[in-house]
Amino acid sequence: MSYTLDRGDLADLARGAALLGTGGGGDPYIGRLLVDQALRHGPGTITVLDPDDLRDDDFVIPTAQMGAPTVMVEKIPRGDEAVAALRALEDHLGRRADATMPIECGGINSMIPLLVAARTGLPVVDADGMGRAFPELQMETFSVYGVPGSPLAVGGENGETVIIDTGADNRRMEWLARGIAVRLGGVAHIAEYAMSGADVRRTAVPRTLGLGLRIGRALRAARENHRDPVEALADTMAGTLYDKVRVLFRGKVVDVERRTEAGFARGHATIAAFDGPRTLELTFQNEHLVARAGGEVRCVVPDLICVLEADTGEPITTEGLRYGQRAVVVGISTPDLMRSPEALGVFGPRAFGLDMEFQPVEDLVPL
Amino acid sequence: MSYTLDRGDLADLARGAALLGTGGGGDPYIGRLLVDQALRHGPGTITVLDPDDLRDDDFVIPTAQMGAPTVMVEKIPRGDEAVAALRALEDHLGRRADATMPIECGGINSMIPLLVAARTGLPVVDADGMGRAFPELQMETFSVYGVPGSPLAVGGENGETVIIDTGADNRRMEWLARGIAVRLGGVAHIAEYAMSGADVRRTAVPRTLGLGLRIGRALRAARENHRDPVEALADTMAGTLYDKVRVLFRGKVVDVERRTEAGFARGHATIAAFDGPRTLELTFQNEHLVARAGGEVRCVVPDLICVLEADTGEPITTEGLRYGQRAVVVGISTPDLMRSPEALGVFGPRAFGLDMEFQPVEDLVPL
Repeated sequence: MSYTLDRGDLADLARGAALLGTGGGGDPYIGRLLVDQALRHGPGTITVLDPDDLRDDDFVIPTAQMGAPTVMVEKIPRGDEAVAALRALEDHLGRRADATMPIECGGINSMIPLLVAARTGLPVVDADGMGRAFPELQMETFSVYGVPGSPLAVGGENGETVIIDTGADNRRMEWLARGIAVRLGGVAHIAEYAMSGADVRRTAVPRTLGLGLRIGRALRAARENHRDPVEALADTMAGTLYDKVRVLFRGKVVDVERRTEAGFARGHATIAAFDGPRTLELTFQNEHLVARAGGEVRCVVPDLICVLEADTGEPITTEGLRYGQRAVVVGISTPDLMRSPEALGVFGPRAFGLDMEFQPVEDLVPL
Repeated sequence: MSYTLDRGDLADLARGAALLGTGGGGDPYIGRLLVDQALRHGPGTITVLDPDDLRDDDFVIPTAQMGAPTVMVEKIPRGDEAVAALRALEDHLGRRADATMPIECGGINSMIPLLVAARTGLPVVDADGMGRAFPELQMETFSVYGVPGSPLAVGGENGETVIIDTGADNRRMEWLARGIAVRLGGVAHIAEYAMSGADVRRTAVPRTLGLGLRIGRALRAARENHRDPVEALADTMAGTLYDKVRVLFRGKVVDVERRTEAGFARGHATIAAFDGPRTLELTFQNEHLVARAGGEVRCVVPDLICVLEADTGEPITTEGLRYGQRAVVVGISTPDLMRSPEALGVFGPRAFGLDMEFQPVEDLVPL
């Protein structure tokens, strides 16, 4: 069902998107402020289109920000870069978009399409290409199920545009676009994976924007009602495509090693139990990739590894991890669409250089 | 006057272009082989258009290779990358080119437009935008005199294309294109500075292709006739836009320090006199930038600093410099068009981070 969003929804959506970002996708805070400002000076509301309400031949151009989250929180966008990318791609393809859409439902990229929508009046499709956040542009269900990412358009803060066309090779598109993002200071705004309404229904993870909003509301309500945030999260996920929720660990952040290299934020974090010598080790490339306790894998990509503040339930991004934070680490099953052999080939453990097979979180951590 | 080139001209042109490349522009050898092959399988000859034979509204798209010369000699092109760049720019602009043109008359970039001409049947304009070689894309007389380099098209070896549009900011165009060149392995083939025939006549350094050919022939004839190559060179340059030729130094290469960084070949070379303790120090960024003897500047960019094998007169590129080579270093005055205050602002000493004013070689080394 299609619906409208207004400024009052943004804080909850940002909170839910930060959770679905599994530590990455960029802190949605700045994106939220930009959308809030655009709504205040513009239409007031954004239309969110259910994928079922798209016509087969509607033309959808997803918009996003790419780069290292460590840079995204310091380099504030002007606000029109993603619109410039969309317009450059429209000009290149000779066709106007009927809607925009997120490429990932986590982090700042839940906000960028809303910003484009608020500035252009286009609706946003309630779906995305990752069902979470991933660090690279070929890691999309669109790509897995045959939609080319090219041509990709970049819009920069000085009005520059770049069009990258690598045909069907989405990995090479990522490689070249990342080079441009690095040259633009570590962040670029992009439009890519232009596709038909029929392809959205065939390849996208549906209704993740609405899910992010419900997660954000549930975490806020839990805090207001002094309820365990993980319990509230599990209730929200029940009956969705993400219906297995497991507590992986509770403890204190005792070590974070983080570096910004080749346009990514990479590193490790260690969380020590409150009550004993046990630790959980998290490895991340923008997003959390794997959680290990005592050398044993507890959850691995593409399942979601989410770090929450233990008391407030507020999601913590990888660049927000700090010594001394009290955290609960949660594993969530990713949608089946993202666990197929084709999907695991693109964004399973080995795609990130991890020498292991994917194992579902519900098998690694039985109830 | 317009004329035709055939396979028999290529070796002489490559030699002359290597000299005008002032050590950079890439070794023309591989480019020459590619042109030779294209002519053998294609039209047999290439039409070289005098700038005066262009119509005002002819549409000229220069083509070139960019990257580190150290990579260019190791990474052999497929041969169709520059044509792909030209076609991508034509498609983007919605207009077919009437001719191509070099962006620099030195090194491999004297050959790339010939390769495009041999493969497409387009004529090549006898002019260029540097009157020599320079390492960066904003360092063009086209840019100095108001022709925007954007949009620039890149054609890669896997069929990928990139269109970069930075409006009137040619320095930023260089910055983004260099990022793509690095991602493509250190070399990219490009089409840029699309312009009218009238703009070619207004902004280009004229007849440098023909000059390269004459230089190459003169150096070969000198070798065959056991004549001093520098004398033959001075005779060739007399009456051209480059009419002051000075011997800066004769000696043996005793030290070369070279590194490939950020897509450039940078370094220093030291040449020791045959008969005493004197040395000449050369500093280069792809091309030679400054020659100093005993701490005193003898020649500085944009004047040409050319290193020749002492006995054969064969030009030596910066990536070809080797310990023990016997060399004569020659300074040549650059055309007046390239010594204007506007031009020196773009490719004078300070544009390369050298803390000095430009001084003409004829003042630094009086006859």
